[in-house]
Amino acid sequence: MAKPALTFWYEFASTYSWLAAERIDDLAQAAGVAVRWRPFLLGPVFAAQGWSTSPFNLYPAKGRNMWRDMERLAAARGLPAVVKPEPFPQNSLYAARVATALPDPARPIFSRAVFRAEFTHGRPIADRAVIAAILGEMVEDPAAVLVAAEMAATKAALREATEDAQALGIYGAPSFITAGGELFWGNDRLEQALAWAKRESGKKYMH
Amino acid sequence: MAKPALTFWYEFASTYSWLAAERIDDLAQAAGVAVRWRPFLLGPVFAAQGWSTSPFNLYPAKGRNMWRDMERLAAARGLPAVVKPEPFPQNSLYAARVATALPDPARPIFSRAVFRAEFTHGRPIADRAVIAAILGEMVEDPAAVLVAAEMAATKAALREATEDAQALGIYGAPSFITAGGELFWGNDRLEQALAWAKRESGKKYMH
Repeated sequence: MAKPALTFWYEFASTYSWLAAERIDDLAQAAGVAVRWRPFLLGPVFAAQGWSTSPFNLYPAKGRNMWRDMERLAAARGLPAVVKPEPFPQNSLYAARVATALPDPARPIFSRAVFRAEFTHGRPIADRAVIAAILGEMVEDPAAVLVAAEMAATKAALREATEDAQALGIYGAPSFITAGGELFWGNDRLEQALAWAKRESGKKYMH
Repeated sequence: MAKPALTFWYEFASTYSWLAAERIDDLAQAAGVAVRWRPFLLGPVFAAQGWSTSPFNLYPAKGRNMWRDMERLAAARGLPAVVKPEPFPQNSLYAARVATALPDPARPIFSRAVFRAEFTHGRPIADRAVIAAILGEMVEDPAAVLVAAEMAATKAALREATEDAQALGIYGAPSFITAGGELFWGNDRLEQALAWAKRESGKKYMH
């Protein structure tokens, strides 16, 4: 039987991507599902929908309730109090390039650290020093990663990820896509996405 | 101790309002929470946000995934297969007026029947004959309710409900608001809303 697999599409500026990033590895391990972390940029996706900023800014009532929802969810999950970074959304381009440049096993660790800096400490993740400090705590040679983040191949890979996301029908973050192409949107769908990936993998080899 | 209470704000054209309508009474009874069913119209709320139709039409990728999500959720909950009514969204004004005119205990029964006609049989709920037929199966004198639905007081009450919803910060449906004013958006938040209503009620009388 093939190992069930799920791709985790996330955006560093997205609050609900943060919540999913905090949960996905534990839940996936318990479910026996392999997760591929794939950062992408929501900016171009939103721009294609005619939005110049986050819908949480465009629609203030929706935005207010999102922040309240985050407070409630963070409290319920024992996470530190949520801090709204200024500005919101943060420019996530640099963080996403660094995450793209990192080897697969380091990406979740780096990504969670970025999300926490942003949403529990309110740190500006567009600031290269902030990203360098996060890297400095987890790798021997952060400078090498920062150089890789600026390479043309890395920039192209991130652009491709964003194009792939759009081609796959992604319109928000986080999103989860199974090996069979089933798309789930939102942190609230993480459990269903994992269950689907598992079922799908079982079915594939039953006939 | 005061009975915990939750107001269920719903819109007949809303697919996720349907899912919540199917679940809320059983879950609320189990939780010991009194639910007030309050129909309102999303049209004016969306218009105030600059939308001329449902976001599921305005943003096709989002719309496609919503219908797929509905299929999955209906299947998981043992509901009949979801049918997309044409057009979508349905004009829900008449159904909402009738629901407003009905006495409180009849409103949930009528509302669930309307949602099922719309989303499992694809029936046009803007058609007065469809609404009359639903009423005919549940009340002795449907004509009296239909007359009440057209009364100025009923129309005013529905307009007021929609204005109240906006004033309370509602921007989509379904929404749930506790006695203490805590707002939860979406069928996915029903369980949390009930738990909050319960906790709130306990706290109020503990000190």
